[in-house]
Amino acid sequence: MLPASERVLVGPGDDAAVVRVESGNLVVTTDMVVEAVDFLPETEPESVGRRALAVNLSDLAAMGARPEFFLLSIAFSAEKGEDFPLALARGALSRAAPLGVDLVGGDLSTCPQTIVSVALWGRAEARATLRSGASAGDCLFVSGFPGRAAAGLALALRSPGSRPAGLADAQAAELLAAYHDPEPRVALGLELSRRNLWTAAIDVSDGIGVDASRLARASGLRAVIEKERLPVSPALEAAGELQEKDPFAWILGGGDDYELLFAAPESAAGAIESLSSREVPITRIGRLEQGEGAHLREDGRERDISSLGHDHFEARP
Amino acid sequence: MLPASERVLVGPGDDAAVVRVESGNLVVTTDMVVEAVDFLPETEPESVGRRALAVNLSDLAAMGARPEFFLLSIAFSAEKGEDFPLALARGALSRAAPLGVDLVGGDLSTCPQTIVSVALWGRAEARATLRSGASAGDCLFVSGFPGRAAAGLALALRSPGSRPAGLADAQAAELLAAYHDPEPRVALGLELSRRNLWTAAIDVSDGIGVDASRLARASGLRAVIEKERLPVSPALEAAGELQEKDPFAWILGGGDDYELLFAAPESAAGAIESLSSREVPITRIGRLEQGEGAHLREDGRERDISSLGHDHFEARP
Repeated sequence: MLPASERVLVGPGDDAAVVRVESGNLVVTTDMVVEAVDFLPETEPESVGRRALAVNLSDLAAMGARPEFFLLSIAFSAEKGEDFPLALARGALSRAAPLGVDLVGGDLSTCPQTIVSVALWGRAEARATLRSGASAGDCLFVSGFPGRAAAGLALALRSPGSRPAGLADAQAAELLAAYHDPEPRVALGLELSRRNLWTAAIDVSDGIGVDASRLARASGLRAVIEKERLPVSPALEAAGELQEKDPFAWILGGGDDYELLFAAPESAAGAIESLSSREVPITRIGRLEQGEGAHLREDGRERDISSLGHDHFEARP
Repeated sequence: MLPASERVLVGPGDDAAVVRVESGNLVVTTDMVVEAVDFLPETEPESVGRRALAVNLSDLAAMGARPEFFLLSIAFSAEKGEDFPLALARGALSRAAPLGVDLVGGDLSTCPQTIVSVALWGRAEARATLRSGASAGDCLFVSGFPGRAAAGLALALRSPGSRPAGLADAQAAELLAAYHDPEPRVALGLELSRRNLWTAAIDVSDGIGVDASRLARASGLRAVIEKERLPVSPALEAAGELQEKDPFAWILGGGDDYELLFAAPESAAGAIESLSSREVPITRIGRLEQGEGAHLREDGRERDISSLGHDHFEARP
């Protein structure tokens, strides 16, 4: 299953793996995904593996780092059979291999609930982009359409027959895909770093509200987001209307988006907007200023959105 | 909780950590420990953290690598409270810090069963020692007293009142400590590598039988172990007698020892034996020859011990 890689001197099978590295800055992250917390129990193992890689790749994307190799540990019930971890690893590799990321080792264990733990390493192009690098006056940008994943989860939790009438199949598919198979913004993070366009970044895993407040706090600033600038995908809007749900609740507090929320000086805005595409728009949604917290501005009024979103201890879905 | 380290440029708290590395070979491993599989449910969190580090440090010891950094992920039930992961991390650091190993990041999640996943990496002094490096004619050595951990687990599973009469407190304590708090042989692995004394190594996590067969298979050889040479701690012998249990069943198939089993040429035997101490004896227990499998020789007869030991899918304890 594993393609040969020159920099992997010893792959899985020994007590540890051995990889060749050049001197410089290694960027490392780890994220667990847990059944019934981070994914629905009936999810196919390939999908679980893709998600486990995606959430870790997203962390490296937010640092502007190039991912290089990963470890994959799987705890699962023996009843699921020997093919289960193999299928899960295939899913993980289907996210990793196109980016040139090598699987170098892992561990298997038993647990009634499936748990996947990934550790991922890579390199910062120049220096890593942190949450703390923003300055007052920087603009705030977001990639993609946050909120689609949360709307997709809401759809996934309904029985197929009870899907809201009027939501086009393509729109439902768009929202479900955003939830089931998030696309980490690795190429975008690398480009923003290579061209030195951004000053601070975070990946939107828990909701724009709480994640904007985290970036603002790390930079010692206050984030102000203009509601009218937030990108709303037509699919999200349609799903909201049909379910009588405010789409902005999904956008600000939904979680699971794995989009990039980042700061950049006004002078870089043009170059950044030129990286925007129809599939992955990049939208300027606000700015950073003196103060603290994350606030949403609408019709001249502001409200605190710092606590909109998931925290690690709220079981979901 | 974290001491400052010059080589950790960004520690926990951002999307990923950033560490400075020199060019060379990075040795990386990961091991999960799972409640009711790898540790008893009533185990204190500090102890779980120490064990999680110890089993990973043991992997690096068997590669002759110097451990440097680790990531620590913890899934636990929210009922255990916020102090639980902190206590667990303190336990992990109590194993890591004396070796100069830095905690650089991690993840927290919820799960009814406690699961701890560690990713640990370090550097090989010269080249890493693999399982596959042995030659026919090499001697086989083992550190410490394998089997004590399994005997300690058997004791731990008895109620305190039903401990076998006649087993001295100090002996019971020795066996329980071997199970509850294994000591990874990091310094020994580094010394054997620095002096280029060994040719192949594995850490004894699942029993001498199966682990010797893994080393032999990786080297394309057959391991022959002389029963009369196996080190038997007096405490293990006493516990075996009192419980009418053959101590060699614990020694060959017990698991959880985290001792080093390694191969070295005859010419290095003297230098290796000079590293032996009363606390951590190093014993020459057999040799590698043409063929396959792992065999125990007693009174001129041989029996296959390749399958004595734990595999990853047998729930224990």
